[in-house]
Amino acid sequence: MKKKEISLILHNIRSAHNVGSIFRTADATGVNHIYFTGYTPRPYNSTLPYTTKPERGIIKTALGAEKFVSWSSHDDVDKLIGKLKKTDVCIVGLEQDKRSINYSEYRNSSNIALILGNEPNGIDSSLLSQCDDIIEIPMYGKKQSLNVSVAVGVALYELIK
Amino acid sequence: MKKKEISLILHNIRSAHNVGSIFRTADATGVNHIYFTGYTPRPYNSTLPYTTKPERGIIKTALGAEKFVSWSSHDDVDKLIGKLKKTDVCIVGLEQDKRSINYSEYRNSSNIALILGNEPNGIDSSLLSQCDDIIEIPMYGKKQSLNVSVAVGVALYELIK
Repeated sequence: MKKKEISLILHNIRSAHNVGSIFRTADATGVNHIYFTGYTPRPYNSTLPYTTKPERGIIKTALGAEKFVSWSSHDDVDKLIGKLKKTDVCIVGLEQDKRSINYSEYRNSSNIALILGNEPNGIDSSLLSQCDDIIEIPMYGKKQSLNVSVAVGVALYELIK
Repeated sequence: MKKKEISLILHNIRSAHNVGSIFRTADATGVNHIYFTGYTPRPYNSTLPYTTKPERGIIKTALGAEKFVSWSSHDDVDKLIGKLKKTDVCIVGLEQDKRSINYSEYRNSSNIALILGNEPNGIDSSLLSQCDDIIEIPMYGKKQSLNVSVAVGVALYELIK
């Protein structure tokens, strides 16, 4: 059986440092592809249409991992999600929500596109409504928030088990 | 039965951003205490002897979590480890090493102090030799490295299961 593929959709992530750190985790966990949407900073040297300014912060934190994980830039996240759904990719949001399932109990043998949302606001409701599933990392402290690159690390290492 | 306690030893961590992010994860996972050793930046407003310059980078990334997790500053990491061992705390290094066990297979019902080491050099050998156990997060990519705050997140969420 072909191993399931996991891709990431980084939508409106603000921090280039977080994007760089996510590239390293994506490389380490064998993520298949990263889709950049919204105003998420793209890697340096991008010549694609939606590029924001070249992001040295990504280079500094990705330590070269941006060269090993394939990625693409997309103007319209809704179109991207529609296209992925047609190829039987399951769209999974990482978010605290009424619908969410504890990440460690979530099982799915399909190919997955995991959506990560903005720091600090999370995935907006119009995107959440397009998710097939929503998974959540439990928080036991007072602040109820993880850095987005830490959250994606915790989720990815569980999803690849 | 009393729940096991997990503390962190942050030794020679370079980046204040990583320390801030680790504070958030420590809060979210119920970490009992953070020990600062070596040149790891301490939280702002520290009046303890070993303080480096006040670190706004921690404040910026910890988002207040540094107020909710108890911490202390120590000049001598070897003395600290000796003291912890006398109280039956198991010293666990998070590092890739010949001795290391896959983090997801590691089981320990004792209280644990988890040592995190320097980016990018890891835990130095003199500290590693003092660890009771060493755990490792497997890497499947080309770069063979995770951001230290991501690595501690992945490890802590497994240790608290």
